[in-house]
Amino acid sequence: MPRKRQTANPTALGDRADIDARMAFLIEAGKLAGVDRATRIVDGSRVENSAEHSWHLALFALTLGPHAPDGVSIDRVIRMLLLHDLVEIDAGDTPFFAPGSEDTAAQDAAECRAADRLFGLLPVEQARAFRALWDEFEAAETPDARFAKSLDRFQPPNLNLANGGGSWAEFGVDEDRLRERLGPRISRGAPTLWDWLSPKIADFFAKRRAD
Amino acid sequence: MPRKRQTANPTALGDRADIDARMAFLIEAGKLAGVDRATRIVDGSRVENSAEHSWHLALFALTLGPHAPDGVSIDRVIRMLLLHDLVEIDAGDTPFFAPGSEDTAAQDAAECRAADRLFGLLPVEQARAFRALWDEFEAAETPDARFAKSLDRFQPPNLNLANGGGSWAEFGVDEDRLRERLGPRISRGAPTLWDWLSPKIADFFAKRRAD
Ligand SMILES: [Ca+2]
Repeated sequence: MPRKRQTANPTALGDRADIDARMAFLIEAGKLAGVDRATRIVDGSRVENSAEHSWHLALFALTLGPHAPDGVSIDRVIRMLLLHDLVEIDAGDTPFFAPGSEDTAAQDAAECRAADRLFGLLPVEQARAFRALWDEFEAAETPDARFAKSLDRFQPPNLNLANGGGSWAEFGVDEDRLRERLGPRISRGAPTLWDWLSPKIADFFAKRRAD
Repeated sequence: MPRKRQTANPTALGDRADIDARMAFLIEAGKLAGVDRATRIVDGSRVENSAEHSWHLALFALTLGPHAPDGVSIDRVIRMLLLHDLVEIDAGDTPFFAPGSEDTAAQDAAECRAADRLFGLLPVEQARAFRALWDEFEAAETPDARFAKSLDRFQPPNLNLANGGGSWAEFGVDEDRLRERLGPRISRGAPTLWDWLSPKIADFFAKRRAD
């Protein structure tokens, strides 16, 4: 009987193929839990993976929303942040302070191919919508994307401050290099958050120099 | 000079204390990456933690939104799912099929205390808003909460189907028990998703019996 009901009901048949496509994407997306980042989690016990990083960032957006610049839609920022690292499933994560991380052309090309493949698993309308959100995030020109990008730069130093300097020590990052690379990127989309973070970074390195 | 600017500017001073509170919450929330669940990630290599699970669920909501019942707000569902497991930082995760998991009074009390402590780190207005969302999720009475709860039940069997039956084998769960416990919980908030999943479960157990 189930077979008969399906044949007689094109909506149900349509639903099945549509959910098949969305679920193929979601199961593939689950691989993001296997992509390791450079930053350590808050207790310093291990490196963070890109899936839990994406959750933490989305929670940053929700919690720090009142400090976003005027006109930012927090719900759109959250959607962007849920999607922003999926390309790393194919292209891997490039640590922000790793040697060569400022030369991004090859990485950008790999991420574009990854976006084609991953979003291409979805029904076409949703593939387009997700790809547009990811492109907007990458371009970092709209207020939503700028705030999302700034949060992506703001979270790791806070993990490092919580766990005693984890990935900074590992990559030999000093205060000047940190300020030079982080400051403009965080202030561009979230100036209030950089104003808050900047003295904490000063305190951290002053204490380290005193030790 | 910085000190003078802060004293002369109560907004900046207010910002600092406000962000201090939100960041204390966000750093504490990072501990969710240390809470292990029973289900294994898609490749079966290790168990999932509650932070990456929360990300995956939020992505389920975003991706399967077109299959939510009428009247569901996907952005509210995503907000709920980002917050829904935070109480596990203090109260731990109770595997759905673990012995005694149906007696929930003690666990509920521990989760309430955890919600008091964790949301209590936030500025009062946001503490109230987050607590209200979490209470709504737990009560599972509004369409948004019912859809969110159904996704929370729908994701683990899909991981198990992807990784060859992981936590079902571990807890000795057979097809009848699975249907009895999952079916009503998934169909209540997401009937289309249960209709899609049910034959996949039948196929999985039929194959297992044939092996
Ligand atoms: Ca990244």
